[in-house]
Parts: sequence; C-alpha cells; structure tokens
Amino acid sequence: MSADEFSIIQTLLAPLASTVAARGLRDDAALVEFAGPVVVTTDALVEGVHFLPGDPIHTVAQKALRVNLSDLAAKAARPVGYLLTLFWPRARPAAQIAEFAQGLAQDQAIFGCALLGGDTVSTPGPLSISITMFGALVGVRAPDRREAKVGQDVWVSGVIGDGWLGLQAALRGDASHPALAHYRRPQPRMELAACLAARAGAAMDVSDGLLADSTKLASASDLAIEIDLPSLPHSPAGLAYIAAASDPIAARLQLAAGGDDFEILFSADPAQRDALAQQSLDLGLALTRIGSLRTGSGLLAFDAQGQSVALGTLGFAHALGC
Amino acid sequence: MSADEFSIIQTLLAPLASTVAARGLRDDAALVEFAGPVVVTTDALVEGVHFLPGDPIHTVAQKALRVNLSDLAAKAARPVGYLLTLFWPRARPAAQIAEFAQGLAQDQAIFGCALLGGDTVSTPGPLSISITMFGALVGVRAPDRREAKVGQDVWVSGVIGDGWLGLQAALRGDASHPALAHYRRPQPRMELAACLAARAGAAMDVSDGLLADSTKLASASDLAIEIDLPSLPHSPAGLAYIAAASDPIAARLQLAAGGDDFEILFSADPAQRDALAQQSLDLGLALTRIGSLRTGSGLLAFDAQGQSVALGTLGFAHALGC
Repeated sequence: MSADEFSIIQTLLAPLASTVAARGLRDDAALVEFAGPVVVTTDALVEGVHFLPGDPIHTVAQKALRVNLSDLAAKAARPVGYLLTLFWPRARPAAQIAEFAQGLAQDQAIFGCALLGGDTVSTPGPLSISITMFGALVGVRAPDRREAKVGQDVWVSGVIGDGWLGLQAALRGDASHPALAHYRRPQPRMELAACLAARAGAAMDVSDGLLADSTKLASASDLAIEIDLPSLPHSPAGLAYIAAASDPIAARLQLAAGGDDFEILFSADPAQRDALAQQSLDLGLALTRIGSLRTGSGLLAFDAQGQSVALGTLGFAHALGC
Repeated sequence: MSADEFSIIQTLLAPLASTVAARGLRDDAALVEFAGPVVVTTDALVEGVHFLPGDPIHTVAQKALRVNLSDLAAKAARPVGYLLTLFWPRARPAAQIAEFAQGLAQDQAIFGCALLGGDTVSTPGPLSISITMFGALVGVRAPDRREAKVGQDVWVSGVIGDGWLGLQAALRGDASHPALAHYRRPQPRMELAACLAARAGAAMDVSDGLLADSTKLASASDLAIEIDLPSLPHSPAGLAYIAAASDPIAARLQLAAGGDDFEILFSADPAQRDALAQQSLDLGLALTRIGSLRTGSGLLAFDAQGQSVALGTLGFAHALGC
C-alpha cells in the first residue's frame, strides 16, 4: 500500500465513519461505549468463492455488509456499527474503492449503521473482505443455535434456492435473471428480529445451503431434523427450475443445498403457528413451516409421499468450490 | 470448505473460545457484555506481505494476535477477547490449523484473552488473517493519535529497526539472526499501557516504520514532528548494521523506515521526562526521547550535527512490497 493509496482510502472511507467512536479513522482503534449486551459477528467474502470477479464492486461491498446483517437478524439484533478489513488486490484499480465505499454508504443509510474502523492491506491474492459487526438486542435475548427443542416446528423466511439460481445465472452471463439480485445483494431479514426474539427457539441464517445449515442447527441442539422437501418455499424462478427438471426431487435438493440464500431458519413451538402466520402477513415476508425437530441426530428429508429421500453430499459449500 | 474441514476447524478452535460469550463457536455470533468503554481494533496479515510463506505457522498465528495487542497497548488497554477471520489456502494442509491454534492458545495464556468467534473460509489466494480485538481501558482514557501538542517530546519504546533486520535475515535464510524473532513474533508492550494512560499525549504503535508512523501521528494532530536520528534506540544488531554501512545516515534511515517494529510511539510533556525515565527503569523497558513536536506539518529528521537530513520516499510499506 503506497502512501498515495493510503490517503485515497482515508479520503474515501472516512465519511463512512460518522460516529465519534470511530475517531475519524485517524486512530489505530475505535473507542466504543455499548449500552447493554452486544451481538458480535464476523463474516468474510473471497472473490471467486463468495462472489464473482465480474460482480459490480458496489454490490460486493453491500453483500459483505449484508451477510453480517443477516447474522444479526438471526440473533434478534439491530446493527450498531462495523469494522472493515479490506484485502485489496494489487492489480485492481484503487479508484474502484470509491465505488466500494459508495455501496457501503448506501447500505449504511438503509440499515442504520456506521463504520467504526478497519484495516486495508494489499494482497497478491483475490479481493477479500472481512467485516465484524456489532448489534444491539431488539428484545431480551439472542436466539442461539442450541435452543431447538424436541417437537418444535422448523420455519424458514422468504424463498430458498434463489441464491444458487442467481449464481448460476451470473456464471452463464444471464444478466436479466430474476434471481441474480438475490445472489449479488441478498436481503437481510432485519424486520424479523423482534419476532425471533419473542417466538423463536433456535435461529440462524441460511448461508451455506438450507440442508447443511438445518443439519448444523439440529446438531448444535443435539437433535435430529426432519425437512419436508415439497414444503420449501421457492420463487417463480425456483418453481420453474423444478418444473423443467427431469428429476424434480434432485432439483428440489439442489435448490435446498445451494448457498447464498441469507434467509432465516428457526425453530418454534407448535403453539406459535397462528402467531407466526399473522407475523408473516404483518411483515409482508413469507414464513414457511418446513419441518420439525426430534430426538436423534442428522437430517431426514421427505418427498411428497412422505418417503425419505436419499441425500448425497450436502456440502458446506459455496458453489464456486469453497 | 468441506464438511470435514469445517469439523476440523470446529474441533481445533473451539477450545480457544473459553468464555460463555463465545457460545462454544457453535452459534453465528457471540453475545458479549462489556463493562465500560471498549477499545476496538482490527489488523490483518497477508502471506507474502506481512509474513513469509516459510514462517512457522504458530508464529504466524501469534504475530496476527500480537499486532492487535500492540494496538491495544498504544490505546492504554488490556485485551479482553478477539474474533478471528482465517482465509485458508486450498493448497495448505488443514492439519496445520492445529499448529495455528496451538500458537493462539499459547498467546491467549500469556496475554489473557479468549477467542469470541470468527469465520474460516478457503481461498485460492495467500493465507490471510484478520483479527478484531476488544480491550478494556487500564486507566481513564485511550490516548488518541490526535492528542499531540506543540512542544511535547516524542518517545519510543524498545528498539527500532529489528523488525526490518529480522525480515532481511529471514529472506536470506539466516535462521540464527538475533532479530529474526522480533520479525516473526513481535513483543506487544502491554506493560506500558498504564503509563501511557497517565503520561502520554498522543500514542500509536509503530508498524509501518518509525518515520512513516511519526508523520502520521504529527499529521493527525495537525503538527510537524522533528526526529533526532542518532537518538533512535537500536539493538546490538541494529548498531552493527549502522557501523558496517558505507553511509551511516542511510543505514539509520533504513532502520527507521523499516516496518514490523511494533513498539509504541508517543508524545509527552517535557515535565514528564523524569517520571518516564523512572518508568523505564521500573518496567525494564527502554523508553527513549527521540524528538519533539512543533507547529507546521510533515517530518524533519536531523543528524548528529543537527543538520536536516534529506528524506527519500518513506514508504508506507511492508518491505515485501505492500
């Protein structure tokens, strides 16, 4: 990083640091006073793994922010501030940092948070971004992955599979595919935070594919999870993908195994069904009951006839080969 | 990242997360309750930029932790916990993560902090590490870079240039050079934190070379800084390097421009001179007065005759070409 580049970054990122705590990014550290417990999460993106080299740089910035916002939502928290570590490739024009900063600025305004500090280093490798984000609880608790209970329902927000479909469209160069935006700029479900604090057992966001993440949720709670495949919510693009497939079950599994959905997966007592249906209407956000938890371990998926479906490797995989 | 690798990481890193707040690394986020203001810092290392591909993996882990500890020391804080983002190269054996974790465990015990969470992703690029660290103030304030005042002295801890000399030794393959350890495993000056809270004006750690960092400190305070080159503290290896050089001034500038020292640079009122000399004795840590602050901008370096020394490009540079 040359002195020139340092000052470019300073100039471009400093306006994002709008709080006193950030010390104008002119110090080595921020000094933050949190009111109450803090949810702390960190998620990283790597070019060629979590986003494509050709993705617009401002959506790359926003994706980096949003995957962390999604974690906060799952923990029933609202964003407060974040730290940014930027590994900037030597070959990528430093001028693109302006677009990167603009993407962050837009999302800071939408989601209400500010840059608190960070580090920018040059790398001979791919563009990589690590964000650490702080959140404040919207209720009295942060639902843990380990809080699932036997007999609870399993729910998911939004639709499943659009992250993966969007990636496939990007790889094909299909710029008009309706799921492309979902891949490039996922929609963190901040509006669900209060509902999760009040009604969820366990909760987590779905980043590595619904099947892999369901398994993790169950495993963290020392339980088994049953998923009713045909109940999974899909977008029109997802339904079209299944309809066009020679093997519809394989197509459903593919959508459920693909990453980058950034929806919320949570468990809830059956007594919450009506309340959650009402919340879904109130929020204008689909909440779908897709399965349940029982004793044991692992994941069981069922088809429309209630038959168990053989699961191949579920991967813990971003489709680009992480 | 395959499911197997995920479980390896889980197994190896989980013991580092010894606090309830970390939720055993089995959740997407940590839930932390801080008592009072929190110093938050983040610093990243990239293989081939901030460390060498051949550096022992456990010292790489420790360097990643220590560069952040050094930032805390400069802000008069003690460590509380940290988040780790690990970009692990596909080609590097996952088994090395055990050694990496061991290095962290050793330093956690030495410095008293725990892993709170993190993210591990695979990368087609170099091994990269980002750590975000939280600290608690040891006094009533965190010295800011912007708090230098006209007429204050400029002090530095320890010795200057051993980071750079250690790097040169590593590049030559000289495994017995006394400065090698300084490059690979810098010594964060945690013992200085309380003294800085009480006696320093501005303070920062020296990571990008004393000359570049002095300039940053002065600039953050809208002042000019004068450095008396012959007063800089050097190790026997540093003094030998100067003695062997055909151009001793150039050699002094090289040591002062090299990175990776991780000493503390701070300003203090002249009234503090006796107290700081006593602190130096009490701590068994060299504290050397190397210059002063005046109105204006930029850096002026002087030789033994009090003549101004021409400064080339000071770089904001890790010597490997960042």
